[in-house]
Amino acid sequence: MRTFGVHSEVGKLRTVMVCRPSLAHQRLTPANCHDLLYDDVIWVHEAQKDHYDFTLKMRERGVEVLELHDLLAETLADKEARKFVLDRRVTRHSVGIANSAVIRPWLDDLPADKLATHLIGGIAISDLPDSAAQRMLAEAFGGTEFILPPIPNTLFQRDPSCWIYGGVTCNPMYWPARQPETLLQRAVYKFHPTFKGGAFKIWWGDSDEQFTGASMEGGDVMPVGKGVVLIGMGERTTHQAVGQVAQSLFKNKAATRVIGCLMPKSRAAMHLDTVFSFCDRDLVTVFREVVDQIRCYSVYPEGDDGRFKVVAEPKPLLEVVREALGLKELRVVGTGGDSYEAEREQWDDGNNVVALEPGVVVAYDRNIYTNTLLRKAGIEVITIRGAELGRGRGGGHCMTCPIWRDPAY
Amino acid sequence: MRTFGVHSEVGKLRTVMVCRPSLAHQRLTPANCHDLLYDDVIWVHEAQKDHYDFTLKMRERGVEVLELHDLLAETLADKEARKFVLDRRVTRHSVGIANSAVIRPWLDDLPADKLATHLIGGIAISDLPDSAAQRMLAEAFGGTEFILPPIPNTLFQRDPSCWIYGGVTCNPMYWPARQPETLLQRAVYKFHPTFKGGAFKIWWGDSDEQFTGASMEGGDVMPVGKGVVLIGMGERTTHQAVGQVAQSLFKNKAATRVIGCLMPKSRAAMHLDTVFSFCDRDLVTVFREVVDQIRCYSVYPEGDDGRFKVVAEPKPLLEVVREALGLKELRVVGTGGDSYEAEREQWDDGNNVVALEPGVVVAYDRNIYTNTLLRKAGIEVITIRGAELGRGRGGGHCMTCPIWRDPAY
Amino acid sequence: MRTFGVHSEVGKLRTVMVCRPSLAHQRLTPANCHDLLYDDVIWVHEAQKDHYDFTLKMRERGVEVLELHDLLAETLADKEARKFVLDRRVTRHSVGIANSAVIRPWLDDLPADKLATHLIGGIAISDLPDSAAQRMLAEAFGGTEFILPPIPNTLFQRDPSCWIYGGVTCNPMYWPARQPETLLQRAVYKFHPTFKGGAFKIWWGDSDEQFTGASMEGGDVMPVGKGVVLIGMGERTTHQAVGQVAQSLFKNKAATRVIGCLMPKSRAAMHLDTVFSFCDRDLVTVFREVVDQIRCYSVYPEGDDGRFKVVAEPKPLLEVVREALGLKELRVVGTGGDSYEAEREQWDDGNNVVALEPGVVVAYDRNIYTNTLLRKAGIEVITIRGAELGRGRGGGHCMTCPIWRDPAY
Amino acid sequence: MRTFGVHSEVGKLRTVMVCRPSLAHQRLTPANCHDLLYDDVIWVHEAQKDHYDFTLKMRERGVEVLELHDLLAETLADKEARKFVLDRRVTRHSVGIANSAVIRPWLDDLPADKLATHLIGGIAISDLPDSAAQRMLAEAFGGTEFILPPIPNTLFQRDPSCWIYGGVTCNPMYWPARQPETLLQRAVYKFHPTFKGGAFKIWWGDSDEQFTGASMEGGDVMPVGKGVVLIGMGERTTHQAVGQVAQSLFKNKAATRVIGCLMPKSRAAMHLDTVFSFCDRDLVTVFREVVDQIRCYSVYPEGDDGRFKVVAEPKPLLEVVREALGLKELRVVGTGGDSYEAEREQWDDGNNVVALEPGVVVAYDRNIYTNTLLRKAGIEVITIRGAELGRGRGGGHCMTCPIWRDPAY
Repeated sequence: MRTFGVHSEVGKLRTVMVCRPSLAHQRLTPANCHDLLYDDVIWVHEAQKDHYDFTLKMRERGVEVLELHDLLAETLADKEARKFVLDRRVTRHSVGIANSAVIRPWLDDLPADKLATHLIGGIAISDLPDSAAQRMLAEAFGGTEFILPPIPNTLFQRDPSCWIYGGVTCNPMYWPARQPETLLQRAVYKFHPTFKGGAFKIWWGDSDEQFTGASMEGGDVMPVGKGVVLIGMGERTTHQAVGQVAQSLFKNKAATRVIGCLMPKSRAAMHLDTVFSFCDRDLVTVFREVVDQIRCYSVYPEGDDGRFKVVAEPKPLLEVVREALGLKELRVVGTGGDSYEAEREQWDDGNNVVALEPGVVVAYDRNIYTNTLLRKAGIEVITIRGAELGRGRGGGHCMTCPIWRDPAY
Repeated sequence: MRTFGVHSEVGKLRTVMVCRPSLAHQRLTPANCHDLLYDDVIWVHEAQKDHYDFTLKMRERGVEVLELHDLLAETLADKEARKFVLDRRVTRHSVGIANSAVIRPWLDDLPADKLATHLIGGIAISDLPDSAAQRMLAEAFGGTEFILPPIPNTLFQRDPSCWIYGGVTCNPMYWPARQPETLLQRAVYKFHPTFKGGAFKIWWGDSDEQFTGASMEGGDVMPVGKGVVLIGMGERTTHQAVGQVAQSLFKNKAATRVIGCLMPKSRAAMHLDTVFSFCDRDLVTVFREVVDQIRCYSVYPEGDDGRFKVVAEPKPLLEVVREALGLKELRVVGTGGDSYEAEREQWDDGNNVVALEPGVVVAYDRNIYTNTLLRKAGIEVITIRGAELGRGRGGGHCMTCPIWRDPAY
Repeated sequence: MRTFGVHSEVGKLRTVMVCRPSLAHQRLTPANCHDLLYDDVIWVHEAQKDHYDFTLKMRERGVEVLELHDLLAETLADKEARKFVLDRRVTRHSVGIANSAVIRPWLDDLPADKLATHLIGGIAISDLPDSAAQRMLAEAFGGTEFILPPIPNTLFQRDPSCWIYGGVTCNPMYWPARQPETLLQRAVYKFHPTFKGGAFKIWWGDSDEQFTGASMEGGDVMPVGKGVVLIGMGERTTHQAVGQVAQSLFKNKAATRVIGCLMPKSRAAMHLDTVFSFCDRDLVTVFREVVDQIRCYSVYPEGDDGRFKVVAEPKPLLEVVREALGLKELRVVGTGGDSYEAEREQWDDGNNVVALEPGVVVAYDRNIYTNTLLRKAGIEVITIRGAELGRGRGGGHCMTCPIWRDPAY
Repeated sequence: MRTFGVHSEVGKLRTVMVCRPSLAHQRLTPANCHDLLYDDVIWVHEAQKDHYDFTLKMRERGVEVLELHDLLAETLADKEARKFVLDRRVTRHSVGIANSAVIRPWLDDLPADKLATHLIGGIAISDLPDSAAQRMLAEAFGGTEFILPPIPNTLFQRDPSCWIYGGVTCNPMYWPARQPETLLQRAVYKFHPTFKGGAFKIWWGDSDEQFTGASMEGGDVMPVGKGVVLIGMGERTTHQAVGQVAQSLFKNKAATRVIGCLMPKSRAAMHLDTVFSFCDRDLVTVFREVVDQIRCYSVYPEGDDGRFKVVAEPKPLLEVVREALGLKELRVVGTGGDSYEAEREQWDDGNNVVALEPGVVVAYDRNIYTNTLLRKAGIEVITIRGAELGRGRGGGHCMTCPIWRDPAY
């Protein structure tokens, strides 16, 4: 019987979900990449090689690595799952009434692995089978125009769903370019043999309703242990969502305290994990400029029915976290280098590392100053190449969705 | 006696000027990089290694490589040169009246190599020697604020000056972030022992006057041979400048025809050489989408006094160039790959290659589709890593200022 | 129904078998590597990454890539297959009578993937489950001593078996360090679901008998098309083997001519494919120094019962091949560079390329002179890193066992 | 006034001499590389890039880097220096009577930089100017045959000379392939403007006599501080040499104790620094298997005239070193990984690191286990690529000849 659950940010990582660079990235162009939330186009083959290196380094440490394309293909082999996904993804809204009639039958018959490829990689007009309708579309819009846009941010599996102790949330995401991702995670958790009927709960978000206003992304969510959950609130995650998630966790006795971390508006602070991540039980790496401005609000349950109270914390985040975890000291490694370098390294995900076990993290090679500081603090830093992967603005933490991780305390 | 002059785009390259990544790039941050015309911050050490590789590959082919920091340091050892540069660069406009009094004496005494480093790398408040004034500035603006901003685009030596047959223009540049570059080239050509009194002329631009409206950048200028000069007109180079340059060339009998190439407004068409470069006597690589929209205007001398006439060309650029060079055929290699890939590879400088001799070019490794097409066309493509260098949006053509190149015909 | 058969050296490659670097390479040391036929130890993780890059580049061209560890693990899930392999691999000769009694039960129960890992990666004393016997062995010989040695040359899947038109030979290999490899291939072909009962024949070598004197390795064997098979005879492949293979092919009407290529004794000429490989229908790359010394003997069938006659060819290899394939011209690209470079590049597998389709080959990056010559001859050269993989002295040709390849003529 | 002298193994490194890969390496072939003490041929361009990276990383830490080709070219501009070198290098023994007459006049007139290139890179018959003699030689031996062999081991500047406190020894080397190196160092120290008349002494070895039996190489010599010098005795350095050096040091009051370290015969123990190097004032990295077998003999002065006594040390090397330096504890980091990995990493120079200052070393990237252990011990490990450079079997320690280094205690 398979175990599920993420009980810390740094305990031994046992199972993780990732998504390799693929067709979606082959379709990034200078013209569309910003809409798709990439700063620049990437060299896809190199990114694939670097991503393989990342997964190989996790495997060498005994981590089981699941991959979204594979999971999705296996999921879509199930007819019910395929219907579940296509009914929601291919609608008169997403592709238009006329197109829907053309596309759906084609997708119904596509081999599962090819369908998975296109659900992530998008459907361009030129992908459609030749027909009068296809030719008309190609003439009107050009073959490279998307019927369904690619969703290249699946590379950042941290966000569309996230495990909090014994369960998971399927996250309604902020930007339209990422919203379609969540459906794929929902399908995997519901229908894939590995997850179907598994010993875990879906805390929140597994619903077709509109979440307008209540968005949350996993990069903001950290089940740090001892019943505590940190949730960053900034561009992507709203207090509306935090309240709902807290309520569900409290109802299910899954957490005893949720700490909302209100981040300042800043390009650097996309998610909490872009400025703050754990490296060891008592060591975090942070971008001081932003972290020092974060204000904390603790949410505690009141009674058993999900009601809660919110308490403004007078102390700064690092102190709140230290106390919440019962630590004597929380060691803090700031972004390295002089001011220029620190800004660059934060930007290049220097503070966005993922722990494989206490004291062992994966980080991008390019953040040499921050990595050196971490090593001087006793952390084992395993490096991967960031030249391509990092252009979507996400590091090892962003690229991983832990599914099974041990407690750390 | 040293030879100067660039008589083609593909003849044997004998002497070239480059500028290595340096302090200026160490000061790029996510916050300032766009103002400084970089799409992203770069890993400077890696960029330096890659740039060394580039220069080593040129040297292996017998090219003499001059480097701007070195040239400038040697230039500034001359007191007159130092005064020439500082009088123009450190003014009440550029640094403020108060600062000027503090800074100038310090700069007057700085060792020449350090002065060169700061003229390119900029002067941050924290660079200034400790004094009451420095402390006040640091308190007011922060130590990382610039008194003189860095000019990281010196990496692209193609632009601030360019050699056209037996002489050179010192180019008034379009964006404020690049305008200070030209002064450094002027100083080198005037005072550096290698150039001082050399057998060449400065056609245009060696003046302290305001050029507002008449900007030109070397990436638009190609002395293709047979007395013909192509000059792209787009974001950076204006017809006002083209007219003045043509007049000077005609007066000096240095050229017999200038072809103004009017580019469409497009992010892809920053300079002519971002969409069009020569690989062999009869082979160019082009980004079709833009090149096919270019309209040509030929400028011919009328009489000996610099008067000229302008003739609109009815034919497209590639045909105009073919005829102008007297070629039977001009072979054209478009950007490679499918539509998505071609857009990416143009963006990553796939069409911005520099020829070391006829049929031998240096190109970025990442443009695998375009490089393959070039190789299939018989071109020897020497690759260099573009992961860092390319983030300033410039390839081998942009990074080189040929100073001595043989004719090709 | 799956198709098998290799009908040329350059036709479209459809299915290929490879073997990734693994435990066997993690056990290479400076002390044992020469016995195991490696010139040097390798950085295994990097080699794995480079090998992944190689397989990814083949997949991008539509090649199906099978991997020996995977195939073997799937094979060993079959009890009969497991018995077949263990009965032959774990004997009183290979591990000693006493050890056999300890080891066999342990291996009988090992999960199939772990068993596959150890059959290739070897069994060190420290691998054995703790027992009195294990402790005694460890004390006597040290834990790193091998009970069964690793067979790291499985990396070079070209050799232990090779497909010739519609069938395959399981090759008795020359060096003791490689002889255990063949058994694994035999097991895969006999028991793996992909191959079991497939539409192909095993021409030769699928036998437990002693082949002393009659060794053959796939690197010497090339089914070049038109019923012709080239077989190099040198260090590894003997005329005794060639005769037997020819007889079998003739009996089965699988070939009409076998050309034995007698190579000079030379460190450079390990296999025919280390000095000679096909890049296109009419283009080979060769190391002239050796190839010009090769003498050819054609073997033709006489009657239908397998008898044959041998005819000494008066012409050199390249001419014999040209005529045998009915080509007007056989273009020849020698190893590139000056004499020193050519020797180095041959040594680094410059002439050991594998074609993915006519005119498209995979080659090591480091052979820049040879690769340039190939490109100038119109060949598309896809490069992979050779810094680690090449230390076993084998390139793309050595690392691949084509299983399905189209005819080229 | 320039400072000379090396007063420790880990004090701040201020000036260092290196030698970049060059013509000598371009002439390595599989046939000659073992005679020239290389395990394999190398990709020279990559090695040059990696070596540049090494020097850049030292420069970034404020180290002045001198390069042998440059120094030698500047030295040979002096006529007397040129005569000094050529009289000794080009003799009837080294090139033959007949050749000497042809070659010497040519070398007398060669530009200094070209002469430096050939003194290191060797002279092949094809290098000679065309003449009847040259043609006869080429016909007899082939153009690639050497008149003067290349000396590629100049890459390892640690060995041909070594600084011990305030002076230097010019070392008579063991293998014929390296013996010519020492002459170049002697010429540089005698004639190069940087060194000529400098405030340092040459302790030993600056002589034309035959040293047969008394060989020493710098990789065995460590002026560890507090008047102590470690000298390994093994394949390359003999007790005959150690005695002479000790005598000279004692006479000059330059040292108070020389510890001869008798190494076991082992492929792993070429020089003391291949199994033992300092990383911090109190931390060494060692290959235990060899180091634990080293026996120490202390040499002390007796009186002022150079007489000395030898005392066998009953304790092991690490303990002797600890006591000699007056340390409470000498921390020891062994080669990392399991037994296989440790052997590989020692072989790949894992224990051959060079300190830039206390606690900061440069090491090869490939020794991931050892580097991790060093980092866990608080050492800052700056990595460089070892794929090519390491094939000559030498790491950062071997490649550097410190000329000015601070005391560490």
